[in-house]
Amino acid sequence: PMKLTILIHCPDQSGIIRSVTTFVHQQEGNVVYLDQHVDKQAGVFFMRLQSEFEREIALDTFKAKFEAELADAFQMEWDIYTDDYKPKMAIFVSKYNHCLYDLLSRYNSGELKVDIPFILSNHKDLEYVAGQFNIPFFHIPVGKDNKEEAEERQLALLQEHGVDFIVLARYMQIVSPKVIDVYPQKIINIHHSFLPAFVGAKPYHAAFERGVKIIGATSHYVTADLDAGPIIEQDVTAVSHSHSIQDFIAKGRDLERIVLSRAVQLHVGRKTMVYNNKTVIFS
Amino acid sequence: PMKLTILIHCPDQSGIIRSVTTFVHQQEGNVVYLDQHVDKQAGVFFMRLQSEFEREIALDTFKAKFEAELADAFQMEWDIYTDDYKPKMAIFVSKYNHCLYDLLSRYNSGELKVDIPFILSNHKDLEYVAGQFNIPFFHIPVGKDNKEEAEERQLALLQEHGVDFIVLARYMQIVSPKVIDVYPQKIINIHHSFLPAFVGAKPYHAAFERGVKIIGATSHYVTADLDAGPIIEQDVTAVSHSHSIQDFIAKGRDLERIVLSRAVQLHVGRKTMVYNNKTVIFS
Amino acid sequence: PMKLTILIHCPDQSGIIRSVTTFVHQQEGNVVYLDQHVDKQAGVFFMRLQSEFEREIALDTFKAKFEAELADAFQMEWDIYTDDYKPKMAIFVSKYNHCLYDLLSRYNSGELKVDIPFILSNHKDLEYVAGQFNIPFFHIPVGKDNKEEAEERQLALLQEHGVDFIVLARYMQIVSPKVIDVYPQKIINIHHSFLPAFVGAKPYHAAFERGVKIIGATSHYVTADLDAGPIIEQDVTAVSHSHSIQDFIAKGRDLERIVLSRAVQLHVGRKTMVYNNKTVIFS
Amino acid sequence: PMKLTILIHCPDQSGIIRSVTTFVHQQEGNVVYLDQHVDKQAGVFFMRLQSEFEREIALDTFKAKFEAELADAFQMEWDIYTDDYKPKMAIFVSKYNHCLYDLLSRYNSGELKVDIPFILSNHKDLEYVAGQFNIPFFHIPVGKDNKEEAEERQLALLQEHGVDFIVLARYMQIVSPKVIDVYPQKIINIHHSFLPAFVGAKPYHAAFERGVKIIGATSHYVTADLDAGPIIEQDVTAVSHSHSIQDFIAKGRDLERIVLSRAVQLHVGRKTMVYNNKTVIFS
Repeated sequence: PMKLTILIHCPDQSGIIRSVTTFVHQQEGNVVYLDQHVDKQAGVFFMRLQSEFEREIALDTFKAKFEAELADAFQMEWDIYTDDYKPKMAIFVSKYNHCLYDLLSRYNSGELKVDIPFILSNHKDLEYVAGQFNIPFFHIPVGKDNKEEAEERQLALLQEHGVDFIVLARYMQIVSPKVIDVYPQKIINIHHSFLPAFVGAKPYHAAFERGVKIIGATSHYVTADLDAGPIIEQDVTAVSHSHSIQDFIAKGRDLERIVLSRAVQLHVGRKTMVYNNKTVIFS
Repeated sequence: PMKLTILIHCPDQSGIIRSVTTFVHQQEGNVVYLDQHVDKQAGVFFMRLQSEFEREIALDTFKAKFEAELADAFQMEWDIYTDDYKPKMAIFVSKYNHCLYDLLSRYNSGELKVDIPFILSNHKDLEYVAGQFNIPFFHIPVGKDNKEEAEERQLALLQEHGVDFIVLARYMQIVSPKVIDVYPQKIINIHHSFLPAFVGAKPYHAAFERGVKIIGATSHYVTADLDAGPIIEQDVTAVSHSHSIQDFIAKGRDLERIVLSRAVQLHVGRKTMVYNNKTVIFS
Repeated sequence: PMKLTILIHCPDQSGIIRSVTTFVHQQEGNVVYLDQHVDKQAGVFFMRLQSEFEREIALDTFKAKFEAELADAFQMEWDIYTDDYKPKMAIFVSKYNHCLYDLLSRYNSGELKVDIPFILSNHKDLEYVAGQFNIPFFHIPVGKDNKEEAEERQLALLQEHGVDFIVLARYMQIVSPKVIDVYPQKIINIHHSFLPAFVGAKPYHAAFERGVKIIGATSHYVTADLDAGPIIEQDVTAVSHSHSIQDFIAKGRDLERIVLSRAVQLHVGRKTMVYNNKTVIFS
Repeated sequence: PMKLTILIHCPDQSGIIRSVTTFVHQQEGNVVYLDQHVDKQAGVFFMRLQSEFEREIALDTFKAKFEAELADAFQMEWDIYTDDYKPKMAIFVSKYNHCLYDLLSRYNSGELKVDIPFILSNHKDLEYVAGQFNIPFFHIPVGKDNKEEAEERQLALLQEHGVDFIVLARYMQIVSPKVIDVYPQKIINIHHSFLPAFVGAKPYHAAFERGVKIIGATSHYVTADLDAGPIIEQDVTAVSHSHSIQDFIAKGRDLERIVLSRAVQLHVGRKTMVYNNKTVIFS
């Protein structure tokens, strides 16, 4: 059977669930999953619904009817996905390979259901990893003088390959609004986090200096506000005085790989919604 | 047998372990536990050693010999504790009772081996809890105008009862240097923490607004630098979009009680050492 | 506004969500929460729905209509709860007080919204704790010879006080089917757990002997099959070779209190459903 | 400077630490790390000591003196390792690639300081992964009829390449005592674990049926007693009713890779000691 995933958010009001489930029923679909959330502060309703159809349906017709009969009336923002489309994921890296290997080994084993049209880097260091997995690699250096030109080349590549979303797998360059605007809530970043916060240039050192017992990693959608976008996934690990800063960083790497991969899986599974600067992550 | 716990820190150098274990042996003690740590950055050596003595020894003589034969030569800062002394712990509270109940139920069951000469509060709300456990309760209001006088009264009570250390069990007043200086690294505080940090007056709200997935709590020794003292213990718990700010706060309460109690146990067990602004926590 | 929580499970089939949300709408209710789950293996649909009503409604009429218009057609098992009823919780204890204190301090602070008609024990040791919180205490000894009679007295007390559910807060007696049958999925137990399993009489010792690194606790509904009922909540904590069996047990106590309290909160919040031997825990 | 790691266990008695640190001092070494543990039940003393030597020392002479002056007197079992030797690690796999990729990406990035003379499998499925990382791959099928012969070939390969230890990265064959006896406490295995235990052929299914909330993984040294060897490392992750058995298994895979890699790092770092069936894991 054909399977659709419908994501909706709209102003909270009475009757949304009833109307959507009735609509799906009229299209001869069977609801196999429904989760919803109301953000009472913002007055916003969120829903993720999956529906199976015994008979093949015309997606365009379905979407047009959905727009006409429901979306207008409830002022919905919505997306409808079919199960058979593999999203195209570009990976941006610099010199660290831990997140890249984690993503590629999941891709390779079939666990991560995406196409990877290319890996892009501002350095050549990881070209060999792309080679190990037979994935095209593009080297676009980024410097003070050519940042704008580099981003033009990035955008050209992204469009040429029909990329759906971008994973910054430890890409050590700030992505500018020019690229973010083309991929809103479609660029996933990973960075270390601390409990409590340690601001400044060397957070691992500051955390170490205060004898911190827990370090973490946060994956989020990239927004113009640096490292302050909506959070997709986080995790932590214990440290102690017996760990050196190098140990902290090694443990941080392990967190980064697992947290980034989980965030990518949530995105690919259409389980994330963003409103204002906040995520709703369906299970 | 009599049991001593020796805590030492000094400039890192060759021969410390050998010298201390030889000294203990000469005093007819048997080393039953030894853990050490070298902070290579700071060049400081830390050691926790426990020793059993078949024959009763004179503690004052032991300490004097230790000072003369070892401490001088190695420029040691040291403490020596016997097992049979129960430290006197004062608890400061305001209106929240969750940490207080946690401490008192552990005290009551014999798990927390301290004496509690009194509970002190700037409010009367929790007087009844002190009554439930038959512990003296002192009410010292703190306002803009009487802060100095209130602290004089606090210090008088602390000295009168021979208090060894203070636990701020959600005491919602800033403790001033006047008190901190009398109890350096002997005042234990608890507060919530976030991953990453959310600065400002309402961190729970800021964390909620960004869809944070993990919240935490940190227990630390109080220093003049507000909530920036050396960390004793931390823990975290998972949250999601489905939790309200009230849920965040309730989960924060559960973390606060468990993290504060663990920190107090580490302190009472003589397992914490502080150097610069950092803790070494022995296991 | 009046608030109802509806819990349903029934054979999985098309149209359930649509029918229930339409029914609630016809009764002038507004769906404020809906979560559902399909156990595909068992072919069972589960739903938790909360609805607000601007106008006061007659609960009996609502239930009768629900039964007539929905429950029959879909072969539903269902419960409907109002928000204003505080369930009556009996606590059974033996000699350990850690879980009891945890429950009572949450009850005392208003966090645990139940009435506690009595605490019952097969020993007198914890009578003083009941006294601290002004809760009636009944001592019913249980021996080889009087087990049946003791359970008759327990049942009489439970019925006399209209108890809705029972918490075994480290009650060291096996509850017999006679009591379980009167309180199916309404008796909550807590016990330690290990990773992996250690069978036999002394699991802490067996786990210790193998150098286990993680210990846990499990809270579950009591069934006739000892300690094998549907799991409500679990948690774990790290241990190491440096911990003694006594440390294991102390850490186990901390887990037991927090896991049992969370399980009780989930039950009181009407967030648990049981089918076959498995729970669905709504968030 | 040259660095030695000394691992010792012996009957617990007075004077061990003093004697060993004095010996190291006499050899002109400086103790830079010392951790010890006493298993009071077993009456066994464990120590891990690291020592730096300004002058190059003759390892054989050092070992001979150590044996003559200390080991005999204290009935020590001991190992002394230098920092500059990379242990030779063989990897055994079957068809799952997740643990293999994790190990190889750490090896590739220099994080895992070993040599990998070969990967061995009873299937050909993962030969291509060995090729991606340019590591020799040997295919030795194992069936009912050729088990003994297969193990002879395994042992021949292991000896020919001077393998120091073996990692079973999801090798789905029971390793027989013939191989275990040659590599005692030098074969590292990984398997899933549950909380509480679920015995029988399909533990994931049994755990799923009872609505388990936490699943785990355990890495241990292989002994003749199947999956009951001394535990090196464990970790867990949360699951819920919303996860399918396939989700359980995927989460289990993620645990297996991280737990196995951590166990391998502990072994390579000479941080593990085994006595009876229990590990002491130094930090």
